[in-house]
Amino acid sequence: MTICISCWDPLPAVCFVWQIAMIVLFGVFIRYDEESDVRKWIEFKVSHNITSDIENDFYFRYPSFQDVHVMIFVGFGFLMTFLKRYSFGGVGFNFLIASFGVQWALLMQGWFHALDPDTGKISIGVESLINADFCVASSLIAYGALLGKVSPVQLMVVTLFGVTLFAVEEYIILSLLHCRDAGGSMVIHAFGGYYGLAISWVLYRPNLNQSKRLSGSTYHSDVFAMIGTLFLWMFWPSFNSAITDHGSGQHRAAINTYIALASSVLTTVAISSMSDKRGKLDMVHIQNATLAGGVAMGTAAEFMITPYGSLIVGFCCGIISTFGYLFVTPMMEKYLKLQDTCGIHNLHAVPGMLGGFIGAIVAAAATEEVYGREGLIETFDFEGDFASRTVLTQGGFQAAGTCVSIAFGVVGGVVVGLILRLPIWGDPSDDNCYDDEAYWEQHDGQSKTLS
Amino acid sequence: MTICISCWDPLPAVCFVWQIAMIVLFGVFIRYDEESDVRKWIEFKVSHNITSDIENDFYFRYPSFQDVHVMIFVGFGFLMTFLKRYSFGGVGFNFLIASFGVQWALLMQGWFHALDPDTGKISIGVESLINADFCVASSLIAYGALLGKVSPVQLMVVTLFGVTLFAVEEYIILSLLHCRDAGGSMVIHAFGGYYGLAISWVLYRPNLNQSKRLSGSTYHSDVFAMIGTLFLWMFWPSFNSAITDHGSGQHRAAINTYIALASSVLTTVAISSMSDKRGKLDMVHIQNATLAGGVAMGTAAEFMITPYGSLIVGFCCGIISTFGYLFVTPMMEKYLKLQDTCGIHNLHAVPGMLGGFIGAIVAAAATEEVYGREGLIETFDFEGDFASRTVLTQGGFQAAGTCVSIAFGVVGGVVVGLILRLPIWGDPSDDNCYDDEAYWEQHDGQSKTLS
Amino acid sequence: MTICISCWDPLPAVCFVWQIAMIVLFGVFIRYDEESDVRKWIEFKVSHNITSDIENDFYFRYPSFQDVHVMIFVGFGFLMTFLKRYSFGGVGFNFLIASFGVQWALLMQGWFHALDPDTGKISIGVESLINADFCVASSLIAYGALLGKVSPVQLMVVTLFGVTLFAVEEYIILSLLHCRDAGGSMVIHAFGGYYGLAISWVLYRPNLNQSKRLSGSTYHSDVFAMIGTLFLWMFWPSFNSAITDHGSGQHRAAINTYIALASSVLTTVAISSMSDKRGKLDMVHIQNATLAGGVAMGTAAEFMITPYGSLIVGFCCGIISTFGYLFVTPMMEKYLKLQDTCGIHNLHAVPGMLGGFIGAIVAAAATEEVYGREGLIETFDFEGDFASRTVLTQGGFQAAGTCVSIAFGVVGGVVVGLILRLPIWGDPSDDNCYDDEAYWEQHDGQSKTLS
Repeated sequence: MTICISCWDPLPAVCFVWQIAMIVLFGVFIRYDEESDVRKWIEFKVSHNITSDIENDFYFRYPSFQDVHVMIFVGFGFLMTFLKRYSFGGVGFNFLIASFGVQWALLMQGWFHALDPDTGKISIGVESLINADFCVASSLIAYGALLGKVSPVQLMVVTLFGVTLFAVEEYIILSLLHCRDAGGSMVIHAFGGYYGLAISWVLYRPNLNQSKRLSGSTYHSDVFAMIGTLFLWMFWPSFNSAITDHGSGQHRAAINTYIALASSVLTTVAISSMSDKRGKLDMVHIQNATLAGGVAMGTAAEFMITPYGSLIVGFCCGIISTFGYLFVTPMMEKYLKLQDTCGIHNLHAVPGMLGGFIGAIVAAAATEEVYGREGLIETFDFEGDFASRTVLTQGGFQAAGTCVSIAFGVVGGVVVGLILRLPIWGDPSDDNCYDDEAYWEQHDGQSKTLS
Repeated sequence: MTICISCWDPLPAVCFVWQIAMIVLFGVFIRYDEESDVRKWIEFKVSHNITSDIENDFYFRYPSFQDVHVMIFVGFGFLMTFLKRYSFGGVGFNFLIASFGVQWALLMQGWFHALDPDTGKISIGVESLINADFCVASSLIAYGALLGKVSPVQLMVVTLFGVTLFAVEEYIILSLLHCRDAGGSMVIHAFGGYYGLAISWVLYRPNLNQSKRLSGSTYHSDVFAMIGTLFLWMFWPSFNSAITDHGSGQHRAAINTYIALASSVLTTVAISSMSDKRGKLDMVHIQNATLAGGVAMGTAAEFMITPYGSLIVGFCCGIISTFGYLFVTPMMEKYLKLQDTCGIHNLHAVPGMLGGFIGAIVAAAATEEVYGREGLIETFDFEGDFASRTVLTQGGFQAAGTCVSIAFGVVGGVVVGLILRLPIWGDPSDDNCYDDEAYWEQHDGQSKTLS
Repeated sequence: MTICISCWDPLPAVCFVWQIAMIVLFGVFIRYDEESDVRKWIEFKVSHNITSDIENDFYFRYPSFQDVHVMIFVGFGFLMTFLKRYSFGGVGFNFLIASFGVQWALLMQGWFHALDPDTGKISIGVESLINADFCVASSLIAYGALLGKVSPVQLMVVTLFGVTLFAVEEYIILSLLHCRDAGGSMVIHAFGGYYGLAISWVLYRPNLNQSKRLSGSTYHSDVFAMIGTLFLWMFWPSFNSAITDHGSGQHRAAINTYIALASSVLTTVAISSMSDKRGKLDMVHIQNATLAGGVAMGTAAEFMITPYGSLIVGFCCGIISTFGYLFVTPMMEKYLKLQDTCGIHNLHAVPGMLGGFIGAIVAAAATEEVYGREGLIETFDFEGDFASRTVLTQGGFQAAGTCVSIAFGVVGGVVVGLILRLPIWGDPSDDNCYDDEAYWEQHDGQSKTLS
């Protein structure tokens, strides 16, 4: 091992120092909650008159948590392996920043949502793990716009600020505005999408075409990316239902998402085929736009949107997203000077924003006839300070929440983008983008093989 | 975007029109059931004296549903990526037709099984989603026989009729004949297998050897296919237990399937090695015949077949299936003029048929000593009109059900095959089969790379 | 089919005979337990006053079981696909020996832990399936050291003895010494690691460099291996929590493992980058050392180790494991004459051993203040003969258990290694290692393609 001083690379230092900071902060703040602490759970069962361990939240949420976990690491990770020579970076840096991000998210979300004012401690349980995965998803979405053009240290910075901004906007949207957003159309997708786009806009590289030779896919890298697509697609019902209300809430959210996604696939195929003069399908569309229905159902999935309502959402979003890949991404690059490697504008930013407004409309249209009195209270948490809120007001707040998430994404992204322009992060040169060579050792024979 | 009129491709129109039809039909018919509707679930808990949300069917079935979902999209999809230049078509068209099929299945199965005669509405819940996945599996099996030889529009037609036929035969077998078939040896595998074989027989291509250069695998396409194999293999216990009785029914079905599958692997390896003069293994066998035990346990898994009974089933089916790949598939092509790309005859048709008969035997051999009086009633649903049925009669009906499923497959497949011979579907020419080039845009460099 | 007599290959005979032996032994010994037998479950519910089927152990453990199952077949299998021409062997032989091993494990573990002295029968349920998967994991770990250098028949022998030794050491450690080891740091990882290393040491090949051309990876084989890495990493919380106590035990074990793994990723990246003079990351480290935190939490995950304690464990083990890949594996090959293909020394042997001692320390440090009186009893099973054991004694026994597992691994491995040196197993020649050509038919075009 030779530790190189002259060509100092900040990655090891960042990993070490930040990880040590996590340990210290966890030591000061993080504790088990009453369902994961052996003593407290025994006491909790007695005090709440619970007779069976099956009532532990673990059994309500753990299967969904694992599905979400697969989406974060395999779903996002493999979706980004499509480039011919950036598969290591796609799946590997995703792994790195998600692992850092979930730790930071447990702290940030804990301070905002689960800090006990008496003890000054944060209690965590399985729902915290799901929320940490959700939180980090927004930074992984942002990575999609930056794929191949930034260094791992820059990605760590993107994640550090991304998680921080997420926790703040989530607090504003969910706690202050009292919005519902179980699958995160607003707080995850709209925010993450615009955050990544804004960073990418600030980091615009006019000479990126010097790396053009590496900006496409190969046959097998496209098949690898389908692993990501399918795991995202299949487990999206778990994503949207993971933290909804026990009982019919989780049940309904899963059904709605499943239906919307099925619909997106058909319209994506239709537009993709129609747009090619020989009717051929484009893998880029199949890998991405098929997921738009899941993104757009992130807010409304837990509401009584009805099965055909879900189909309509998926139908429209498949079309909109595919059109985005066909027209909007190239135009954004040409006129807005915004390079969006994975097209997150079409998969996350726009469907997320639409999902927020769809949620607003469905909430505003809720009636006591459909939900029942108790059901309305349960679904929209009309309790405590919000007991007197009407569904119409709720719809307005949902729409406002969507705007807040976009504003946070755009402003936060610009600021973070400016920070990333400092010349200290070791980002790749313009002719070295989309190339694993820059950050990964290439073993025997690899440098000569391009498939 | 240039929309080409002269070389009109029906795919976009089919996707659009059928998806719009789904939206209309869902609007007219599909509603949430009492466990996924917020109002009904609150009322249901009161009326059924349920104190905890954990009793919602979602918590009994959702983890199994997600496993089944992975089998449908990743399992079937990646199993069909083994061809060297048809991996996009294998996983991509599987994705398309499954997404259409589940929607159509929710309607078809709903009309037959869940239509409320008072309201004229179909109620759906998580069990409906599992059943829709099951239903579409039969069409995906049929796709296995047709892989590389048909156009996506033809596959949509295969699925439209496949799901329709499935719903009818399922109604006859499960409701009229009152058979038990939780993992679908009969209704899914035997039906789907013979359906696909019959279609392929009608669509026989005498000059298919013009595409011989593309009919094999490459090293990495075989590894991709193992992803499909393993996810099918691992989650098959969930497949066979997903809709069985709560409690010991699901528990036992999972154990039996797990055991049978383990046994199939060993006999597949044995026959595969024995059949080669240097003792080498063939990936085709490992990818397929190892799954035969799961297919063959589709009916009997929920019965008290005993662990060693399951082992014997897996043992025999691994042998039969591998022999099928070695001898029967080549002979069927030569003498029956039946081209079966994935060998579904050996993986689904025959093991499914055997599974039906095994189920009949195990049912007929059931005794009150083993099941208990209440257990017999619970396992075979000897209630209502069927309260006086004996296990022997039940065995007879199970065998009859198997024959019904095969008949539906063969006759339905011939009819659908004839429809597909109409010269309007854009199927590939004989020298263009097994080639993604025909339906997928090839990005930079791909056309020159064959690995 | 030509059955070759002259060049007799023992693989088919071994598979057939051993599988038939399994059937016979299952017939004599294995029965459903009271939660998977339809009659017994009905009686059990009455006698235990259980009103809902959700109390069946299936619903507590099945989701975790399926995650573990994925780790065994896809996790271990794909982790071993990294070699450029041994991907078939990596995933395929893993499939074969795991399928045999789980059957043998159900018997061996049954005889030691679940044999009813009255009836002479073994009762199995979902927990037995998890334990069988666990048991076979130790043999798959051993395979990691031998990858590419042994024949499939030798692997069957490794598994036969590995499972047998496992059952004995597990009985000693868990039942006689009354240790806790839910995620198997000791019984699975330390044992399996040293077992594999000892075998590999006995089978040392001085001329292995004749196969050097095949001992590396290619670009896409490294991406395949990441599938294995990620599924292991994501589902490790399920692995460590699968058989812990219902309620807070499973909940806490999942949280602790999740946290420790996240921490390992960062320190692995740090050391990997630091060790290269240009700061580049090595895929070998990312694929393996990131998992060390999960291994090391195998014993302590169910204890009240605290979240920051978990972080520290992951932090240290990521460093130790990566250093192992950098220095220890090359040195072991040079000075100890020990060839360890996958570096299991660094991923399983050492982190497993450390995990055992960490468990001992955490157990010894347990206090009534933290666990509560009832919690201590529940966590450490201080009941029956062990009712008066103190936590300090428990810590001592945990440490002793770790030593027992290592001793079993080393001694057992040497003995099995000597058996495998008999010249009857058809192992590959020195210039034919790491080559699927030896055991797998190569289809069209494969032999010429190296990617």
